[in-house]
Amino acid sequence: MSSHHIVRDDQEPALIIANGAACNAELLGQLLEWSPLVIVLDAAMERVIKLDVKVDVLLGDFDRGFDPEHYQTAQYPIKIIHTPDQNKTDLEKAFDYLIERKIPAVNVVWATGRRADHTITNITNIIRYRDTLKIVILDDHSKVFLLPKIFKKWYTANTPISLIPVGNVTGIHSDNLFYPLKDDTLTIGVRTGSSNHVTADGIVTIEHQEGDLLMMECMD
Amino acid sequence: MSSHHIVRDDQEPALIIANGAACNAELLGQLLEWSPLVIVLDAAMERVIKLDVKVDVLLGDFDRGFDPEHYQTAQYPIKIIHTPDQNKTDLEKAFDYLIERKIPAVNVVWATGRRADHTITNITNIIRYRDTLKIVILDDHSKVFLLPKIFKKWYTANTPISLIPVGNVTGIHSDNLFYPLKDDTLTIGVRTGSSNHVTADGIVTIEHQEGDLLMMECMD
Repeated sequence: MSSHHIVRDDQEPALIIANGAACNAELLGQLLEWSPLVIVLDAAMERVIKLDVKVDVLLGDFDRGFDPEHYQTAQYPIKIIHTPDQNKTDLEKAFDYLIERKIPAVNVVWATGRRADHTITNITNIIRYRDTLKIVILDDHSKVFLLPKIFKKWYTANTPISLIPVGNVTGIHSDNLFYPLKDDTLTIGVRTGSSNHVTADGIVTIEHQEGDLLMMECMD
Repeated sequence: MSSHHIVRDDQEPALIIANGAACNAELLGQLLEWSPLVIVLDAAMERVIKLDVKVDVLLGDFDRGFDPEHYQTAQYPIKIIHTPDQNKTDLEKAFDYLIERKIPAVNVVWATGRRADHTITNITNIIRYRDTLKIVILDDHSKVFLLPKIFKKWYTANTPISLIPVGNVTGIHSDNLFYPLKDDTLTIGVRTGSSNHVTADGIVTIEHQEGDLLMMECMD
C-alpha cells in the first residue's frame, strides 16, 4: 500500500466552504486533503467550482435565482440539500446537518471577510454548538475556536493569542501568557483579551468559570 | 469662487485609516474628499503612502521596528503621535485623540478584514464611545455604527439591515423591517438580528431600551 494512501473516515473533520472572502489556495488545499466530506453553502458553489474542488454536499436556501440542479451532473455524485428555514443561517444549517450525520468536528473557511454582519454572526454563533460539534473557523490570518473550561496547548514563544468573550466571561486564569489573567472578567465591547501573546515555549493554560470564550490564533 | 471649492472644517467627520484590509479606492477617495483630518495608524502608513494620500496625523506605538520619523519630510506637515499604552488599541488611542481635539465624528476604514480578533475588537469597542464620538466603520461591504435608543432613517425597500447586539439588548421595537421586532431581546452568539431588510421605501424606526445595538448596513 502506498504511503500516500489516506484513509478518509468520519473521524477527520468535515470542511464547510461558506460564502465570505476566499482563503488562499494553500490553506484550502491542506484542509481538503484531509476532509472526508466537503460542504459548500449556496452561491459560493459558483466560486468553488472554478477551483476544481470535488463537492459532496451543496446546501442552501437557493433564494437568489441560483440553480443548484445545474451541479447534479458536473459534480456527480453530489447531495443537494434545500434548507428554506429563514430563522437560521446557511452555516448553522450545515452544522445541524453534520450533527445529524454524527460527524463530530468541522473546519470552516470563507466564513469571514466581506460583510461584517456575516463575519460577526458566523464567529459568535459557534458558541451554540459547544456540546454538539467541534468547530474551527479559519482564514488567511485567523484560527478561531471555542475554549473548553480548561484549555491546555503547547505554543512557541510570542505566538499571538487573543481571547474574545462572546458576552461576559468570568473567572479567567492564564498561565504562560504575557499579559496574565487572574480571576479576571472579560466582556465583549468593554474589556477583551485581544493581542496577548505566549511568554515562553511550552504549555499555555487558559481556564474560565462561566461564559463563552473564543480563542483566536491570529497573525498579520 | 469655483463650485469645487470645499470648506474643510472640524464639523465634517475625521477619517481614520486603520491597519486591516484595504477598502476599494472609490470609497477611500469619497471619504478623503470631505475629511478635514486624516489619521493613519502605525504601519498602515507604509500602505497608505503608496496611494498618494496626504496624512495629517500618524499615530501608533511603533513597536515593530517601523520608523515614523521617516515621514516627517515626505508628508510635511505631519503630526506624529507616539502612543505606547498597551492597554488600548491604536484605534482607541486615535478615538481618544479626536475627543481631546473636540472633533465630534469620525469615519474609519481598513478596520476590518485580515485578523478576526482585530475585526471583532474594532467593531465592538465602538460602544465605549457612545457619548463622546460619532463613529462609523466602513468597508467595501459594510457600514457599521452604534444605534441611539431611538433611530429613524429613510431607506429604500429591500435594503439589507442587520442588528447586532454587543452583549444583551432588550426592549427592541422596529417599524418597516421585514422581520419585525416587538419588545424583543437580542443576545450576541445566541440570537442576533442579522440579515433583515427594509419592507417598503420610507422611514425605518428602531428603538431599544437597554444595551448596545449595532446597525450594520451590508451588501454582497
